[in-house]
Amino acid sequence: MIADSMVSLVKNSSVIRAMFEEGNRLAKLYGAENVYDFSLGNPNVPAPAEVNEAVKDIVDNEESTFIHGYMSNAGYEDVRQTIAESLNRRFGTHFNHTNIVMTVGAAGGLNTIFKTLLNPGEEVMTFAPFFGEYRNYVSNFGGKLVVVSPNTVDFQPKLDEFEAKITPKTRAVIVNNPNNPTGVVYSEDTIKKMAAIMDKKQKEYGTEIYLIADEPYRELAYDGVDVPYLTKYYDNTIVGYSYSKSLSLPGERIGYLVIPDEVTDSEDVKSAASVATRILGFVNAPSLMQRVVAKCVDAQVNLEAYDKNRKAIYEGLTKLGFECVKPEGAFYLFVKSPVEDETVFCEAAKKHNILMVPASSFGCPGYVRIAYCVSYDTIVNSLPHFAEVAKEMGL
Amino acid sequence: MIADSMVSLVKNSSVIRAMFEEGNRLAKLYGAENVYDFSLGNPNVPAPAEVNEAVKDIVDNEESTFIHGYMSNAGYEDVRQTIAESLNRRFGTHFNHTNIVMTVGAAGGLNTIFKTLLNPGEEVMTFAPFFGEYRNYVSNFGGKLVVVSPNTVDFQPKLDEFEAKITPKTRAVIVNNPNNPTGVVYSEDTIKKMAAIMDKKQKEYGTEIYLIADEPYRELAYDGVDVPYLTKYYDNTIVGYSYSKSLSLPGERIGYLVIPDEVTDSEDVKSAASVATRILGFVNAPSLMQRVVAKCVDAQVNLEAYDKNRKAIYEGLTKLGFECVKPEGAFYLFVKSPVEDETVFCEAAKKHNILMVPASSFGCPGYVRIAYCVSYDTIVNSLPHFAEVAKEMGL
Repeated sequence: MIADSMVSLVKNSSVIRAMFEEGNRLAKLYGAENVYDFSLGNPNVPAPAEVNEAVKDIVDNEESTFIHGYMSNAGYEDVRQTIAESLNRRFGTHFNHTNIVMTVGAAGGLNTIFKTLLNPGEEVMTFAPFFGEYRNYVSNFGGKLVVVSPNTVDFQPKLDEFEAKITPKTRAVIVNNPNNPTGVVYSEDTIKKMAAIMDKKQKEYGTEIYLIADEPYRELAYDGVDVPYLTKYYDNTIVGYSYSKSLSLPGERIGYLVIPDEVTDSEDVKSAASVATRILGFVNAPSLMQRVVAKCVDAQVNLEAYDKNRKAIYEGLTKLGFECVKPEGAFYLFVKSPVEDETVFCEAAKKHNILMVPASSFGCPGYVRIAYCVSYDTIVNSLPHFAEVAKEMGL
Repeated sequence: MIADSMVSLVKNSSVIRAMFEEGNRLAKLYGAENVYDFSLGNPNVPAPAEVNEAVKDIVDNEESTFIHGYMSNAGYEDVRQTIAESLNRRFGTHFNHTNIVMTVGAAGGLNTIFKTLLNPGEEVMTFAPFFGEYRNYVSNFGGKLVVVSPNTVDFQPKLDEFEAKITPKTRAVIVNNPNNPTGVVYSEDTIKKMAAIMDKKQKEYGTEIYLIADEPYRELAYDGVDVPYLTKYYDNTIVGYSYSKSLSLPGERIGYLVIPDEVTDSEDVKSAASVATRILGFVNAPSLMQRVVAKCVDAQVNLEAYDKNRKAIYEGLTKLGFECVKPEGAFYLFVKSPVEDETVFCEAAKKHNILMVPASSFGCPGYVRIAYCVSYDTIVNSLPHFAEVAKEMGL
């Protein structure tokens, strides 16, 4: 008796989440140290010490009804101002608290902004491979996700196909940079070209096309690579951010939206986002965590741990003959399946207690995603098992 | 360029929230002690000491990646089991962790359950006066809110009209007990009759009609009044709970749904609720607060403070000639406007820096809501100003 729209969703529930549960099951069965669970982007690096210090400092020194109470739906004004100023220092922007709406993670932020912008039947574009949940977030509001096919050479977006697929119904474009699931960082050159295409199409159709920068992995970038801040390249840009990865707080559901003054009808978009966060049932981002992130605005997780993992898994797997693009950001490695159907590869690996996500769920069949936000030992110990899988796959 | 559906929502944004902002503005202008802001249900009683002790204990003694990390979308299994057992002890129920889905407050819970159950065009019933946000929560999923008109004698629901308005499209009925905005508690007799009507109508139409018990005020009951636990009276009952009031944590967005095994297709409903909480962008209830409420399962705010306020405001206003039903629960007083148009009453009061919410937004024109979750001094100091308003209104 559940809603019709939920029936298939329950049946095909998130592949990633199903694997997370499967990983827990196998860990109970074989011992956690004998399971190589690369399925979920659940950070293994602890939150920086500043986080727990801030938690204790706040509950000891600020008033209970303030730190646990309601505030404006968009969040505490001082928290939003602190975040705006931090962005200004780092990216040369000129935001203030009115440009920031605190959200229940990036997922909450994306739902809020789609509620704000989307009319039923309108289109949202993204580039494969992409985070599969976009499909649900867009369809929650009657929108249609239009996917640009993957460029499997270097996983930069295919801009010709992008331009060809923009229609008068295109309302928004999601760019996830650094990218989940590939770990690739879209270059400044790519972003400039993309912005030029969108500007041209806005004029051609007389529409507003919003660029949604989904940036939970912004701070996870390696080898000194530059991750362009998109508001600087295209006026109609809205940023969705999360502290899930930068402060290792995925369970806390804390993030924000940036709605710059340059966005068309900026005042309306800000007001509507604030109303949307209320009526969707978020009401506001968790209050204590808002205050915590403001105190930790310059804190960062131990990136070196991820970087060490990145090198170990990339080198380990390429040495075994697996083909993969070297990731410059996030904590994912995107590996070409040695056989056409990547679920066969995943099943073979699972027999060795290795869990990976088939990339069909990211719109890119023939590949798998490895989330290397696990302990270094897990990676090192998984390699002999990967070697056996490689042998079985004829590598 | 915002979505069409958001245009009127932004224009008529929550009356209550607008007053919250207005209250802050007046406080800056005249000093907080000279503003009598009864607009928002934002608890003034601090969280019990156990809450902050639990927060510190958890961050000091549990692992960072565990307390701030992802867990199953429905929440930590041990937290859910602790809550289930607490309910069993208090209400003689027989729940376990599988019956509990942790949610981002009651608002998040209601959106989750409507996403789970509602097909577009289906009807959800409720009893006026009612929390105005129900209208948005239902329309988020294409549902239609059907309102049973208020019984202004004692504000128990009108059961004849209820029965007459149930149709084959009725999918759910929301009962908010103790009630916001009246403070009235629906009696066991009322609930039994309501259950009998719903049972009869389910058989008559061959449909499933879910009873949604929205219970953020359950623990705020006075004079020893009994608040019936609805799962015991009707099988297809789903409970939405929040710790916003019982632990004074409204900003933290922490609550849960109870989906009993007796609900038709219970397994499907549980799975769908878990998926719904994920795809709506909540993902999971805030992790640290999940662990905190489990440690505070027997803690409670200082109810005596609210009770003292209740008596002071009720006696103060009735003595001045205002007509109001004596509240037995929640922290609201529902006052009949001395003039037909209650917005005139509210505007007159505002000139004396008294903020109250016109009850048209609760589907009950001619009344106002006073949220007495303020300091005792605010109540005492407001009374001379209420006296002036009473005089102006000809009382």
